Amino acid sequence: MRYLDYSEAELKAELAALNGACEAFRKKGLKLDMSRGVPAKAQLDLSLPMLTDLQTAEDCISETGTDYRNYGILDGIPEAKKLFADLLDVKPENVIVCGSSSLNIMYDTVARNMLYGVCGSEPWCRLPEVKFLAPVPGYDRHFAVCQSLGIKLIPVPMTKTGPDMDIVEKLVAEDESIKGIWCVPKFSNPDGTVYSDETVRRFAGLKAKAKDFRIFWDNAYIIHTLYPDCPEIPNILKEAEKAGNPDIAYVFTSTSKITFPGAGVAVVASSDANIAHIKSAMKFQTIGFDKLNQLRHVKFFKDVDGLKAQMQKHADILRPKFECVLNAFRKELTGLGIAEWSEPRGGYFISLNVLPGTAKRVWDLMVSMGVKLTGAGATFPYGVDPEDKNLRIAPSFPTVENLSLAVEALCLAVRTAAVEKLLADK
Amino acid sequence: MRYLDYSEAELKAELAALNGACEAFRKKGLKLDMSRGVPAKAQLDLSLPMLTDLQTAEDCISETGTDYRNYGILDGIPEAKKLFADLLDVKPENVIVCGSSSLNIMYDTVARNMLYGVCGSEPWCRLPEVKFLAPVPGYDRHFAVCQSLGIKLIPVPMTKTGPDMDIVEKLVAEDESIKGIWCVPKFSNPDGTVYSDETVRRFAGLKAKAKDFRIFWDNAYIIHTLYPDCPEIPNILKEAEKAGNPDIAYVFTSTSKITFPGAGVAVVASSDANIAHIKSAMKFQTIGFDKLNQLRHVKFFKDVDGLKAQMQKHADILRPKFECVLNAFRKELTGLGIAEWSEPRGGYFISLNVLPGTAKRVWDLMVSMGVKLTGAGATFPYGVDPEDKNLRIAPSFPTVENLSLAVEALCLAVRTAAVEKLLADK
Repeated sequence: MRYLDYSEAELKAELAALNGACEAFRKKGLKLDMSRGVPAKAQLDLSLPMLTDLQTAEDCISETGTDYRNYGILDGIPEAKKLFADLLDVKPENVIVCGSSSLNIMYDTVARNMLYGVCGSEPWCRLPEVKFLAPVPGYDRHFAVCQSLGIKLIPVPMTKTGPDMDIVEKLVAEDESIKGIWCVPKFSNPDGTVYSDETVRRFAGLKAKAKDFRIFWDNAYIIHTLYPDCPEIPNILKEAEKAGNPDIAYVFTSTSKITFPGAGVAVVASSDANIAHIKSAMKFQTIGFDKLNQLRHVKFFKDVDGLKAQMQKHADILRPKFECVLNAFRKELTGLGIAEWSEPRGGYFISLNVLPGTAKRVWDLMVSMGVKLTGAGATFPYGVDPEDKNLRIAPSFPTVENLSLAVEALCLAVRTAAVEKLLADK
Repeated sequence: MRYLDYSEAELKAELAALNGACEAFRKKGLKLDMSRGVPAKAQLDLSLPMLTDLQTAEDCISETGTDYRNYGILDGIPEAKKLFADLLDVKPENVIVCGSSSLNIMYDTVARNMLYGVCGSEPWCRLPEVKFLAPVPGYDRHFAVCQSLGIKLIPVPMTKTGPDMDIVEKLVAEDESIKGIWCVPKFSNPDGTVYSDETVRRFAGLKAKAKDFRIFWDNAYIIHTLYPDCPEIPNILKEAEKAGNPDIAYVFTSTSKITFPGAGVAVVASSDANIAHIKSAMKFQTIGFDKLNQLRHVKFFKDVDGLKAQMQKHADILRPKFECVLNAFRKELTGLGIAEWSEPRGGYFISLNVLPGTAKRVWDLMVSMGVKLTGAGATFPYGVDPEDKNLRIAPSFPTVENLSLAVEALCLAVRTAAVEKLLADK
């Protein structure tokens, strides 16, 4: 029976019961941070052999005799470019392998376009206004890059197949001040949505009014499946080339959630023109990124099959956690008419939509029960969820045991906040 | 006898002899790149034990239980902050430990000030003109950062005690568009000059018209002595605080020439206000730099004494190379009135001033004899040495045997170009 159909008396009784359950839960003294998508220790242990890949001078020298301990090689060691080119299905010359953070590459790419323009365009910092489209719900750190640089974010709703492309196409065709869009095409953050082939092709064919419009294609979860299979999406760079739009996208990915978040390798791939433009500015920025860590990754994985095999080991650790959360949602929240959630097949998050107007209250209740979730509103630009309903659940870090407790609390909180709201609205 | 006092006939005879010697040298088929200050293989081997510092999960976890393989810690692991704070004689909270490139931190610091301003000032990218002072001869990559960002460089002559402070003080007091100056205070690039105590204190007390003026204090060679002793200079940050000028300087250094240029650790230190401002923007840029590589460095060196002991091993490798070059200069170039050179006690370079108007010719002659030097003009903004006389010699990479050959060629080239010039001027 849906809470909406409860009488005031029934709601009051339900609230009393829920309050009691919350109070009982508080006595457990749980203390858990689930605010970010952080791998668990067991996942980090999967990459321990990588630490001892390089031990001798010979280990650090390439087949062609280059000593990777020394200076040089701006765009990444050839072995790493090959590995990530194969992963991204592009040519090695269209890949730049950088340091440990793809967020840093994305930030640098926006900052570079602010300071230098894009392939000859006016630097964005000289324009009266710069806007980016922000599919919502989305990734708070994407939004924060723009906000910090004074770039205005325009929300675009996510659908089951990716961002609403009718809106995207209309906005970018009309408004020359729109210079970019943030996309997480596979297992999107937080919905876990995999963009449909049509969505990818419509992105590839996007006719933007601004010549310096770019898609920031953050393929963070490219092989981060929870199940033996991993969905494939069309290659945005190849599709863009086919569509006569070769320079429309930058593609980013990293090994943060493949090896070590604290010591991974991140890459950007794009068209010849975009890569040349990036390098033309990057050469002033550094002599080169950490080549030994790039080499460690290559020696550990050898090839894309090595990467994929590693992801199956991650999946075996992550899958029970996602299923723990989803099973609890199904059991505790189905039929009440107060919650919907995504059932992702990969990535790091479950998106939970609670009764509009109660997400912040749920977050507060969770804090009171010892669990810190990602801030309510974080999945929207400026931290403002207009309906106050979306919560991002990050099941990766806790043990299954702790996660069961946390999700028990979460279901209590979602129900309590809903009943409180319905009572207040009576 | 000075070449200037040679008769035309004597010059012609000298030229014929020199041309013959150059031609004979070309037959040796030497092929050597001395264009950059690159450590030799033997120096890289000194840090090999660092590669196996971290082998187990336990190795990667701090005393307080933080797993450095995972996300987090924007400003560097506490152990690394302590090590570099001790090296720089500042408090750990005034240090940020980043990735492998101090050039990248310097670039980011300039770019950040362009995009965000400095501690509340107008972003530099919105100003009609931004200028930096460039002590000359200086480091080409410093100049290139500014040039790439459209910042105008104003050369300031170097003296035996550092940049000409009368000029520096006058310019920064007068011109609000001057926002920075590049300094290499110890074993400057390329002169090897150690700033005098007075120079450091005058920098610390600098009264700039622009409130957002900053000194970019690149202490790249802080402990990079060639001899058992290492000169000490006053601490710019402490002196600045004493002078009521606490926020005037950013201090940079790195382990590029202590451990591995291709996999080191770089740091920035500054006042509370500057560090807070850097972090306020940096938090949008990355979640954190490579923490495992920071930890490798700490485990390898343990403390500042460990760093200094390592530098004595470097000195033992580098000293014979510097002395090889200097001995040849003394033997082959003394008394001809066509060359002056620095005799550095540390750092990576020897600065050679040849007969004005001949540096480019010397460079070309060196190429013809199989040796690539740093480009003539590279030590000046925009690559233009107004007197065409300065050459930067980088003795670190070649073997002593190859270096002896290269410097033999160099002395021939310097003499040949001088005689050619004097004959042309007759």
